Amino acid sequence: METTPNASYSLTLRVKLINRTGALGALTTAIGRAGGDIGAIDIVSVGRGVIVRDITVNASSSEHGARIIEAVRAVEGVEVINVSDRTFLLHLGGKIEVVPKAPLKTRDDLSMAYTPGVARVCQAIHRSPEKVFTLTIKRNTVAVVTDGTAVLGLGDIGPAAALPVMEGKAMLFKEFGGVDAFPICLDTKDPDEIVRTVRAIAPVFGGINLEDISAPRCFQIEERLKEELDIPVFHDDQHGTAVVVLAALINALKIVDKRMDEIKVVVNGVGAAGVACTKILLSAGAKNIIGCDQYGAIYRGRSEHMNWIKDWYAQNTNPDNERGTIHDVIRGADVFLGLSVPGVIAIEDIKRMNARPIVFAMANPIPEIMPEEAAAYVAVMATGRSDYPNQINNVLCFPGIFRGALNCRASQINEEMKLAAARAIAEIITDEELNPEYIVPSVFDRRVAESVARATEEAAYRTGVARRERHTEETVSDELASV
Amino acid sequence: METTPNASYSLTLRVKLINRTGALGALTTAIGRAGGDIGAIDIVSVGRGVIVRDITVNASSSEHGARIIEAVRAVEGVEVINVSDRTFLLHLGGKIEVVPKAPLKTRDDLSMAYTPGVARVCQAIHRSPEKVFTLTIKRNTVAVVTDGTAVLGLGDIGPAAALPVMEGKAMLFKEFGGVDAFPICLDTKDPDEIVRTVRAIAPVFGGINLEDISAPRCFQIEERLKEELDIPVFHDDQHGTAVVVLAALINALKIVDKRMDEIKVVVNGVGAAGVACTKILLSAGAKNIIGCDQYGAIYRGRSEHMNWIKDWYAQNTNPDNERGTIHDVIRGADVFLGLSVPGVIAIEDIKRMNARPIVFAMANPIPEIMPEEAAAYVAVMATGRSDYPNQINNVLCFPGIFRGALNCRASQINEEMKLAAARAIAEIITDEELNPEYIVPSVFDRRVAESVARATEEAAYRTGVARRERHTEETVSDELASV
Repeated sequence: METTPNASYSLTLRVKLINRTGALGALTTAIGRAGGDIGAIDIVSVGRGVIVRDITVNASSSEHGARIIEAVRAVEGVEVINVSDRTFLLHLGGKIEVVPKAPLKTRDDLSMAYTPGVARVCQAIHRSPEKVFTLTIKRNTVAVVTDGTAVLGLGDIGPAAALPVMEGKAMLFKEFGGVDAFPICLDTKDPDEIVRTVRAIAPVFGGINLEDISAPRCFQIEERLKEELDIPVFHDDQHGTAVVVLAALINALKIVDKRMDEIKVVVNGVGAAGVACTKILLSAGAKNIIGCDQYGAIYRGRSEHMNWIKDWYAQNTNPDNERGTIHDVIRGADVFLGLSVPGVIAIEDIKRMNARPIVFAMANPIPEIMPEEAAAYVAVMATGRSDYPNQINNVLCFPGIFRGALNCRASQINEEMKLAAARAIAEIITDEELNPEYIVPSVFDRRVAESVARATEEAAYRTGVARRERHTEETVSDELASV
Repeated sequence: METTPNASYSLTLRVKLINRTGALGALTTAIGRAGGDIGAIDIVSVGRGVIVRDITVNASSSEHGARIIEAVRAVEGVEVINVSDRTFLLHLGGKIEVVPKAPLKTRDDLSMAYTPGVARVCQAIHRSPEKVFTLTIKRNTVAVVTDGTAVLGLGDIGPAAALPVMEGKAMLFKEFGGVDAFPICLDTKDPDEIVRTVRAIAPVFGGINLEDISAPRCFQIEERLKEELDIPVFHDDQHGTAVVVLAALINALKIVDKRMDEIKVVVNGVGAAGVACTKILLSAGAKNIIGCDQYGAIYRGRSEHMNWIKDWYAQNTNPDNERGTIHDVIRGADVFLGLSVPGVIAIEDIKRMNARPIVFAMANPIPEIMPEEAAAYVAVMATGRSDYPNQINNVLCFPGIFRGALNCRASQINEEMKLAAARAIAEIITDEELNPEYIVPSVFDRRVAESVARATEEAAYRTGVARRERHTEETVSDELASV
């Protein structure tokens, strides 16, 4: 199944055209017939009887891109000089850089930022270790840590191939949260070694964002790091997703006028995200949640295909101990939460749900059921995709939640902080604005990160995990006396 | 011993003065008498009969700064409102940041830099691992790795207190070499654990700069990392210093008209830098080098206070197997190379040296012998300080040598590359320019890094450690076909 043409498969074709009426028309027609979506058309140069143009075309896949190029090559009077792929161009040399915040142009600059001046700053931190938060990047810096075992939908592609995702994450951290994030891609899959390595590099960081680590290893790695470190450790695939799902569900329930503690929720997929969504929904008051893996419902007494996290799941969900496949347990459900694979459910399944069903089908890029298919049978629908309404996107959560945690030097991101973040996202949308196609704000809504940061910070102070004194103005006037 | 007033102890005093003739004069006189060096004087505000000014003053130490403040407080009609320390101000919140190289303002930006577009880039690297050098930050990124055990002259102050130095290093990498460097401060002193950690985080980096790790651990850590990684590993305290020392010595020998293979060199201090300087001088052709530690000369057969690196040293230096203290073996030496502690040698020692002696006294901040003291007895003198001629500063080496290594994707920085870098630094100074007070270029001479990079890259190709095909233009036109 191909997606619609979009910028992620965007090509720039440099073509030489015979300069006569209709030549460009023949070219654009050919691209249109091949299904390409034309963006910009620019003139590069005009010569004797020929004109060179750059044509930017969105395709829906690599294969589609190749077909478009073939179609262009077949047009008479057109020569394809060069094809560049805009996504690859953007990635050349990487997407982030490390830059000085102050100039280093004079000897004075050098003697303050480096030797000999820097020695006094080092000594101040050596004497008062908490000053590392004031006088270094630790205050604003997060490690984006992966072992490359569960990258996007691509699986275990390894640490080097995962790096472009981590760089993208670092861009988002800075752009939306003002957080400095740096990718740490680990050349090991051993949980002990991962824990040891992250612990060893922790001094530089004010927080650890775990990313794309496969389940169930991710649960143990996160738990152990939380125990061993005094800075927030947050597995975004779990908690970022969970926070945004909860935000969306809070708003969806308003639309269907149901209460969290009365609904039946079916969660399909009990990997990292599925487990975390379940936990946050329980924290938010949900009582009846049933999880399914590919073998069906997870219940107390199930003996096949279990592991320690599924044992936990069985003990803490499914109060009526329902059994059967997703098609069985979906009966009477108010909410379907898909964090699994394309096409898992069909219209028949939705018809078995309770009145005014809510469907969050978040398999990416192809959802558990396509929105156009489900539309007539659901009250509210959300996906992980940007080309349908209600995109459940972690970007709504992680920049703001880390911003809030760093602002108050939180020692952890606890359950209260996550719930506060979810509520803050939900509240961006007013009751007047709320409608079935607008239950979560846009990722480009600049109010989100700010609002999430404020709510997270507030919750950190309330629960006693904030280590920065409230409302202190930082001054260095005292530094001299103390040095 | 205090240094001269400099920007590293720079204060800004905000003072309220009675607005009458002579008030400012009384204030500046008081500062001058206290030995303060006044920089800018600015007016902040003018009120009824009073004027508020910011006065920037360089001091020579923290204690000196405190005395200056006291002197100002004692002036009649002057009230000190606030004192800020410019070095601490500069460090607030850290000195580097991680920023996106492309905007993330639209959905198209997001779909190319992040999902779904990024998945194709990940797949391309997964299929062709060498593409990580083209399509990620690896191409231009170096880890600045320390365990905080030998920071500047401060010793073992730990990883957090070392961070300001590593941030400063990252600034220098970017400013002088265009290299993106990120600090990795390790919360472990165990060499095995350090090796394991650096190996684990290596996928993101195109090179590893080891920094401020104590000897002799630093030698083993570097050797093991070199064996295990396919990217350059470079302990700057060793090799950066060695390269610049060699550059300075090449030029100093021209002045005294002596040959490398004929001179006697006494190296005082056989820690990281002393050993590396010795090795590079041997590579450059020196035959007669004698190393001394605090117990005297290192010779074959010495049994006290030895370790494996001193055993190596004894086997490979001191051809005449001289014994005794530094005051003994300095007799007849052409070059004194001090990488040790203040005040180790006196005029009497220099008088025992050969005619036209060269003295590099690099203990920091106080040299083995002060230049003003030695001046009358030496042909050429250099120190590690910026306030005397001939500053031996690693900044002349590391940005350029890594720039060159990254440019050609070198798998290591080998001896040939270091020698080439040293020659490149030396050659910046023409025969016409060369004089006893100008044997090394200024750290602000922008030609240095470029020239070092070019020479290093050239040597990498010559010795077969460059992995990038020469003169290839990077194109992404082919990416599409290969995806």
